[in-house]
Amino acid sequence: MRGNLFGKMLSIVSFGESHGPAIGVVIDGVPSGLAFSQADLQRDLDRRAPGRIAGTTTRKEPDTAEVLSGIFEGKTLGSPIAVIVRNTSQQSGDYDKLKNEIRPGHADQTSLDKYGIRDHRGGGRASGRETIARVIGGYFASLVLPKVHVRAMTTKLGNFEWKYNPTQNMTADFGPYGFPDATQTEAIAAYLLELKAQGNSIGGKACIVVDNCPAGLGEPAFDKLKADLSKALLSIGSIVSFSYGLGEEMAQASGQAISNDRSSFGGIEGGISNGERIFMQVTFKPTSTVGEHAKKGRHDPCIIPRALPVVESMVKLVLADHFLRQQAYTKK
Amino acid sequence: MRGNLFGKMLSIVSFGESHGPAIGVVIDGVPSGLAFSQADLQRDLDRRAPGRIAGTTTRKEPDTAEVLSGIFEGKTLGSPIAVIVRNTSQQSGDYDKLKNEIRPGHADQTSLDKYGIRDHRGGGRASGRETIARVIGGYFASLVLPKVHVRAMTTKLGNFEWKYNPTQNMTADFGPYGFPDATQTEAIAAYLLELKAQGNSIGGKACIVVDNCPAGLGEPAFDKLKADLSKALLSIGSIVSFSYGLGEEMAQASGQAISNDRSSFGGIEGGISNGERIFMQVTFKPTSTVGEHAKKGRHDPCIIPRALPVVESMVKLVLADHFLRQQAYTKK
Amino acid sequence: MRGNLFGKMLSIVSFGESHGPAIGVVIDGVPSGLAFSQADLQRDLDRRAPGRIAGTTTRKEPDTAEVLSGIFEGKTLGSPIAVIVRNTSQQSGDYDKLKNEIRPGHADQTSLDKYGIRDHRGGGRASGRETIARVIGGYFASLVLPKVHVRAMTTKLGNFEWKYNPTQNMTADFGPYGFPDATQTEAIAAYLLELKAQGNSIGGKACIVVDNCPAGLGEPAFDKLKADLSKALLSIGSIVSFSYGLGEEMAQASGQAISNDRSSFGGIEGGISNGERIFMQVTFKPTSTVGEHAKKGRHDPCIIPRALPVVESMVKLVLADHFLRQQAYTKK
Amino acid sequence: MRGNLFGKMLSIVSFGESHGPAIGVVIDGVPSGLAFSQADLQRDLDRRAPGRIAGTTTRKEPDTAEVLSGIFEGKTLGSPIAVIVRNTSQQSGDYDKLKNEIRPGHADQTSLDKYGIRDHRGGGRASGRETIARVIGGYFASLVLPKVHVRAMTTKLGNFEWKYNPTQNMTADFGPYGFPDATQTEAIAAYLLELKAQGNSIGGKACIVVDNCPAGLGEPAFDKLKADLSKALLSIGSIVSFSYGLGEEMAQASGQAISNDRSSFGGIEGGISNGERIFMQVTFKPTSTVGEHAKKGRHDPCIIPRALPVVESMVKLVLADHFLRQQAYTKK
Repeated sequence: MRGNLFGKMLSIVSFGESHGPAIGVVIDGVPSGLAFSQADLQRDLDRRAPGRIAGTTTRKEPDTAEVLSGIFEGKTLGSPIAVIVRNTSQQSGDYDKLKNEIRPGHADQTSLDKYGIRDHRGGGRASGRETIARVIGGYFASLVLPKVHVRAMTTKLGNFEWKYNPTQNMTADFGPYGFPDATQTEAIAAYLLELKAQGNSIGGKACIVVDNCPAGLGEPAFDKLKADLSKALLSIGSIVSFSYGLGEEMAQASGQAISNDRSSFGGIEGGISNGERIFMQVTFKPTSTVGEHAKKGRHDPCIIPRALPVVESMVKLVLADHFLRQQAYTKK
Repeated sequence: MRGNLFGKMLSIVSFGESHGPAIGVVIDGVPSGLAFSQADLQRDLDRRAPGRIAGTTTRKEPDTAEVLSGIFEGKTLGSPIAVIVRNTSQQSGDYDKLKNEIRPGHADQTSLDKYGIRDHRGGGRASGRETIARVIGGYFASLVLPKVHVRAMTTKLGNFEWKYNPTQNMTADFGPYGFPDATQTEAIAAYLLELKAQGNSIGGKACIVVDNCPAGLGEPAFDKLKADLSKALLSIGSIVSFSYGLGEEMAQASGQAISNDRSSFGGIEGGISNGERIFMQVTFKPTSTVGEHAKKGRHDPCIIPRALPVVESMVKLVLADHFLRQQAYTKK
Repeated sequence: MRGNLFGKMLSIVSFGESHGPAIGVVIDGVPSGLAFSQADLQRDLDRRAPGRIAGTTTRKEPDTAEVLSGIFEGKTLGSPIAVIVRNTSQQSGDYDKLKNEIRPGHADQTSLDKYGIRDHRGGGRASGRETIARVIGGYFASLVLPKVHVRAMTTKLGNFEWKYNPTQNMTADFGPYGFPDATQTEAIAAYLLELKAQGNSIGGKACIVVDNCPAGLGEPAFDKLKADLSKALLSIGSIVSFSYGLGEEMAQASGQAISNDRSSFGGIEGGISNGERIFMQVTFKPTSTVGEHAKKGRHDPCIIPRALPVVESMVKLVLADHFLRQQAYTKK
Repeated sequence: MRGNLFGKMLSIVSFGESHGPAIGVVIDGVPSGLAFSQADLQRDLDRRAPGRIAGTTTRKEPDTAEVLSGIFEGKTLGSPIAVIVRNTSQQSGDYDKLKNEIRPGHADQTSLDKYGIRDHRGGGRASGRETIARVIGGYFASLVLPKVHVRAMTTKLGNFEWKYNPTQNMTADFGPYGFPDATQTEAIAAYLLELKAQGNSIGGKACIVVDNCPAGLGEPAFDKLKADLSKALLSIGSIVSFSYGLGEEMAQASGQAISNDRSSFGGIEGGISNGERIFMQVTFKPTSTVGEHAKKGRHDPCIIPRALPVVESMVKLVLADHFLRQQAYTKK
């Protein structure tokens, strides 16, 4: 009820402050008997981890997942799966100067409004480290829907823009920045390093494509698939817009024009998946830390590359949850 | 669990098919002792009702609200409030020809995928008439937060566009189409009638402004205020995008540029209301019914004018729900 | 969140005051395509209705169910099913004298404590008429589990006592008082009429037997089947105890003694149904209205005969809910 | 949805298998700014811990609580509080012989029915060690309601019986077996050791008394206080009955007799607390492990002494949850 629970039949409970002992998650509702791979889980976490990519934070933490429950002899038991990641890089001293600093667009002030107290160290609960819980959840969601392919890519980062087309191959290697035009990798790196040197940051866009999603997911009234996907993605701190299918272009579309092209609807009709490719877009705001703090390391001038696995995980969680919900009502 | 429940501390359960006996709603969580006005409720419903506005459906139904419970001697009891609106205009004959028709972008096919059965009369459960439940819910939400002012307006309808500015007075009369430039009313009417004559429809945009929202609403992780608002709005059938604050413009914003202008964040920081004006935008797709059916009446060439009270209601429901949630945790 | 919602995958929302316009219920989560019978629903309601049985209230209301949604051409649509029963016998005058009366053991005082306001007419929301919603819910639950047989019987009413044995046939006709020894029917009637003449009331016991319940229902930690059944039954106003299997006799049982007789566990082991007959017992307190009011009619000297269909309905709702929950996690 | 979540405004999620790495819990909804004491939490856990009491299991585990989140500088942050207890005594070899053993009354068979897989080591998830999560949750619930006094005591253990009276002082020291007559302590110890020597076990009864509970807690329909308390207590593995107030004695009570003695209603009227002392009783079945296994140690011949803090914790969780729910709807 304090918003740390996400999902109904497959749910995650996220916990942990950035500079507390650990970040963690309890995943409940994973069916029993599914094969678990520690290596696959770690690979997903490593995609989100800092310090891998030129131009992103240099805070290097191993982010090693420790499974505390729910797995026995390599398989899911059907009981809740708890996983924690220790916060090893707790240089609290670095953050003392932030004690009284209120960053615009961040939770610094509003957390105080809400709780009358906050853990100022690195954003505390509002830190991006909280997304570790989501990536772990997304890994288990993918066990529920192994054939569904969810992929996010960077479509705008500064002047680097990519135009998605509906026949695009979404299994290609998109490089460290998730930008499909691999020839731009070095130029993006240079751009991000330059931003960082200036103590600046930049927003951008990503799109998410889902292939092989079964038809019939989503509920007709409030839990439309598009509504739950939108909530899932807007629950990520830096995302400020969501659209699916034609998105904002729909504002100038006529009914006759779109009625012959089902791809306009982005795989979702009447709030329910239609079995076609699902297509969504999100916008990211620039990260809040700018100026001298941003230069010193540990901060990302653009969050998108590291956010892509988080975005994918939230989508996977929604789809797996709706899959289980639908399964409950279907005769065997 | 089938998605007909919305909200936690203040919740609504929506029911009813377009051509069944009634559309209705149960509102639970309204505090006791609040003054109820049948006239005010009816006025809200009338704003959504068809047949009032040139260029919208000519289906004329009185949409009279009947309160079945929860009100005693003009006050809320604290018990669940049930309200129904009878479907008086059930000319099912009109719809028999739709029995085998599958409209693109609508729930016709996906409902069959999901349930293996559907009520084809006027969209059944997926009809826009379901939004009656939301407007009724919104009325009661406004009793919980009487000082909060929620207002939606049309910002794009065909070539009619309106540029919002942060100091705009949101209490003005925006006319039958919710378009702030009242000098355009006749031109919009003519445009919609022309569209209808062609059996065509058009999308558009609206923006929603909230004044006097208390700081501290929204929960930090998954139930961020922006996430719940986004879900609420995307749960409306014709809405295909949501953004808040600068929205998609954030994609080209730099951190340094926005850090001096808190209005960029649209009244929500770290997912929590900051006490400033809240600003959101949504995109509508064109209505699905085109061609000969659309010419005959009962169909809207553009849904936005009638959708504005629905949009406002969903926002009110989210805010009142989060207000009660926050109140639960605050010492008296 | 105000406690008017029961169940997760199959849920009911109950509404209505005793002397308001109607009592009603929204049932959500009934799978699509199930055959609905108005006559069967009415038959269930008639079992609960007042005025049928010597010695029970003479308040005669037809309690006619009106289905408002969710049914089309005789089948469930998968959408929410709303059903209302109008309160036809609203002789409010009768109740004005109760305006300032506070009955012991009833919600009269505590409702005021809680809400600061109450509908004093006939108990308002706390009236036994609220159980109409439960019986309607139970009817739909039985559509989900048509082979499961749930039956409640009176086992103690004054000096009339019945000793259940594990091989008892639970499909027999138990007469108007639900007491398996049909030879006692007239004696029970005489006893109840005598109690009524004295303005008195009496408590009693009932037991509930479930046959053909599938194994595997119930969740291991908090939502154990026994826990959810207990909550369901204790949510009925007049029930003050719940036990299953050997019940309070377990207090003197030794582990060795019971380990050879699985029937001691009442069909539930580790909180999960084991496929055997489920056996439960509940105790009812005497009805709260005594003295002159109780003599005048409209009041039951013993609530058990009319409560049996309510008891059965609550059990059916729990079983159907857990069945759908389990189905969600089971591969097809 | 798999039953590992308990509570709404104050909720706990329990996880962990008996012989997995850890048992743990996430508590969400604790208001911010409350003083936390590691020592008090540990003291509560120690009351539940094995190995303290003659006649209970000799499995000695320190059960040390490690707080992973939600506490900062000695105060609650308002964010989720995660606490784990490592399982240090994982002598799995001991349990291999249990791999194919199915204990009557235990989850051994039904877990297989449900999941098709189980962790056979020490009961896995169905182990009594899961109750560590509840005791930790109860500690935090007590922070929410510091003035409410919840106390459980043994009222029947073999031939040792205690008759509660309504004026009994519930703050006395009840000794290691929670039995108010301290002169019986040695006799009880001898009795339990004798049972253990025989490889046998025994059931019993406990009663729970709550003082200083505010009036107005509990919701009128399904979430009546008595219903939620009953569910909470029946969710404990070994509890087979619940009653409140006069309990099963109500079966022979007349309305006139009880209408003059409000203590008959055990502090709950109409499902809502009335501000008086709350009184409840539960029955425990004998523990399932009998015969040679039971003789060897690690098993309790009677679970009640160690279950008392668990019982108290479940009651505290219900009361704190309902307190927060009620607070949400109360004007400040």
